[in-house]
Amino acid sequence: MVSNTAGKVICCKAAVAWEAGKPLVMEEVEVAPPQENEVRIKILFTSLCHTDVYFWEAKGQTPVFPRILGHEAGGIVESVGEGVTDLKPGDHVLPVFTGECKECQHCKSEESNMCDLLRINTDRGVMIGDGKSRFSIKGKPIYHFVGTSTFSEYTVVHVGQVAKINPAAPLDKVCVLSCGISTGLGATLNVAKPTKGSSVAIFGLGAVGLAAAEGARLAGASRIIGVDLNAKRFTEAKKFGVTEFVNPKDYNKPVQEVIAELTNGGVDRSVECTGSLNAMISAFECVHDGWGVAVLVGVPNKDDAFKTHPINLLNEKTLKGTFFGNYKPRSDLPSVVEMYMNKELELEKFITHEVPFSEINKAFEYMLKGESLRCIIRMPA
Amino acid sequence: MVSNTAGKVICCKAAVAWEAGKPLVMEEVEVAPPQENEVRIKILFTSLCHTDVYFWEAKGQTPVFPRILGHEAGGIVESVGEGVTDLKPGDHVLPVFTGECKECQHCKSEESNMCDLLRINTDRGVMIGDGKSRFSIKGKPIYHFVGTSTFSEYTVVHVGQVAKINPAAPLDKVCVLSCGISTGLGATLNVAKPTKGSSVAIFGLGAVGLAAAEGARLAGASRIIGVDLNAKRFTEAKKFGVTEFVNPKDYNKPVQEVIAELTNGGVDRSVECTGSLNAMISAFECVHDGWGVAVLVGVPNKDDAFKTHPINLLNEKTLKGTFFGNYKPRSDLPSVVEMYMNKELELEKFITHEVPFSEINKAFEYMLKGESLRCIIRMPA
Repeated sequence: MVSNTAGKVICCKAAVAWEAGKPLVMEEVEVAPPQENEVRIKILFTSLCHTDVYFWEAKGQTPVFPRILGHEAGGIVESVGEGVTDLKPGDHVLPVFTGECKECQHCKSEESNMCDLLRINTDRGVMIGDGKSRFSIKGKPIYHFVGTSTFSEYTVVHVGQVAKINPAAPLDKVCVLSCGISTGLGATLNVAKPTKGSSVAIFGLGAVGLAAAEGARLAGASRIIGVDLNAKRFTEAKKFGVTEFVNPKDYNKPVQEVIAELTNGGVDRSVECTGSLNAMISAFECVHDGWGVAVLVGVPNKDDAFKTHPINLLNEKTLKGTFFGNYKPRSDLPSVVEMYMNKELELEKFITHEVPFSEINKAFEYMLKGESLRCIIRMPA
Repeated sequence: MVSNTAGKVICCKAAVAWEAGKPLVMEEVEVAPPQENEVRIKILFTSLCHTDVYFWEAKGQTPVFPRILGHEAGGIVESVGEGVTDLKPGDHVLPVFTGECKECQHCKSEESNMCDLLRINTDRGVMIGDGKSRFSIKGKPIYHFVGTSTFSEYTVVHVGQVAKINPAAPLDKVCVLSCGISTGLGATLNVAKPTKGSSVAIFGLGAVGLAAAEGARLAGASRIIGVDLNAKRFTEAKKFGVTEFVNPKDYNKPVQEVIAELTNGGVDRSVECTGSLNAMISAFECVHDGWGVAVLVGVPNKDDAFKTHPINLLNEKTLKGTFFGNYKPRSDLPSVVEMYMNKELELEKFITHEVPFSEINKAFEYMLKGESLRCIIRMPA
């Protein structure tokens, strides 16, 4: 199958962020054909993740504008550039913000997913191959975001950042696996690895934390303790397997002590999904000595220092962190999609809102108000 | 075999620490018979470990005097108290400073060796069963040390702190497995778990660090980088498999950066055996992102805080600590003795000195001058 647009510039709609914090503007953009090792993808569904919002607000981040944001999406390959043999037009794919070149020491290691070539780079607004953008408006370049820029009807992505998935999978559901949901799920299943019947504390009950809880539920944990400063979140969290709720504001002692008292000395595993330094320290210190494992997922501020007394480590607690749930995007995401297809993993409960592409700014509003977990943005048919 | 001393008080020689930092004094002591769940052991060989010296100096430690120190030793069971079924007179044993009750949640966990009942307690100078000492001089009690007090011809130990070993094993060699050597060896073999051909950094080339290096050698590591402020130690360290030496004093940048440059981004594993906070931080930060594992062994000062930027964790480095190399004393030490018997593990190179019991204070001098790794103290025949 060869599309009749292959090799040509495609003109289509994209939501452009012209400046920090201002509503995205729907523009007609030109999308250049994919170059060597690149793929052009027709996006069918995309969703909004906090990371898009951070780089749109650009408060602590390098401002790169005008830019096309978006990195959680599902689409269909329209055409491929030179050297691309793994993918062909018509393939169903998820673009991913971090890549897998399959040749570097990380890709060759069974343990790492931190590809040397295609590891996330939030400051780069161009393609890695030639240092240029594939997007333009009347010839003036518009920058990419994390190599995906899915807030466009068409986008160009390095082949190493594209996971080919089961074509039977509904893209309006599995698109959320491109980032946050896989990050939380993998943090639990691939890194914390709770055993059946064990106890797990989840810090932060946003989408990533709830995905971590979903992982604990799938692993058969018998106690899943949700920790959040917002008591409203507990009702929703129950759907994700959370059995108990601890609000640190309800106690006048550190939450790690509260959890230790609830669990005869500490939980077996904890997963930190807020990025708050205090939550990281609590998440580590609340695991049981002898065997407890704490996994950090949330991204902290630049200058934060994690601190703990070394005796917590000498008492045989383990501290780990993870990036994208330790999933290798191309090798591992297809099997996460299969977990959904086999009805093990439930994705519907993460999807709280849906808007047409023309109303993409509403998705930002829902997230900023804390109303949504995931809002699906439907591209025009 | 029943000894004719069973059930009676034994009078014998012991080296008593009457006060902090003063030479031990050879005294005639009375050793009471073992009570319920206790074993009386005739010590044949004991060795001196830094921990004995710390509690003898009692600078940052609670002073408990008069006390019989000593916790690395090999001996033979003289008699057993009520309820002891695992051991009988004549068994060859290693007393251990920490125990394994086989009934608590830690003992039942495959991952932990931090027994709830018999975990090391350096402040307790009495037996756990009745809160009394088994040692006395003319009726006045002399305190125990970590439940072992092996600087005595006879001592009484809780059965949970006694490992029964192969009677063919030479006690003048395997006695060093009671503490430091197993701690370093296990930190590498049981916790860091380097794979064949990998790179390992060892911080601190004292007896524990050299045992960690020996573990890396046994695991087939191809690069073993020794880090120490004392350049003299490198010559000796080569015998333990150390292939390269880094002295932090030779560089004007952090040693973690030096190691990262030597190893294309970091070592696969590191083991910290100094207890210095800076060394702990360097040991963590010098491991490779994606898969590196750092293991803390050295015991820090009370008020030290371990600090690092959380991004080091999010980049998939793992931080662990260990206590007694994660060995369960009764279940696991017999197999460490077998590693020596099978000529895999080399113990002779750790033993640099030997003195008769009457000259025990010389062992302290050798250690304080930094001349010895292990000095074996031979009890009278």
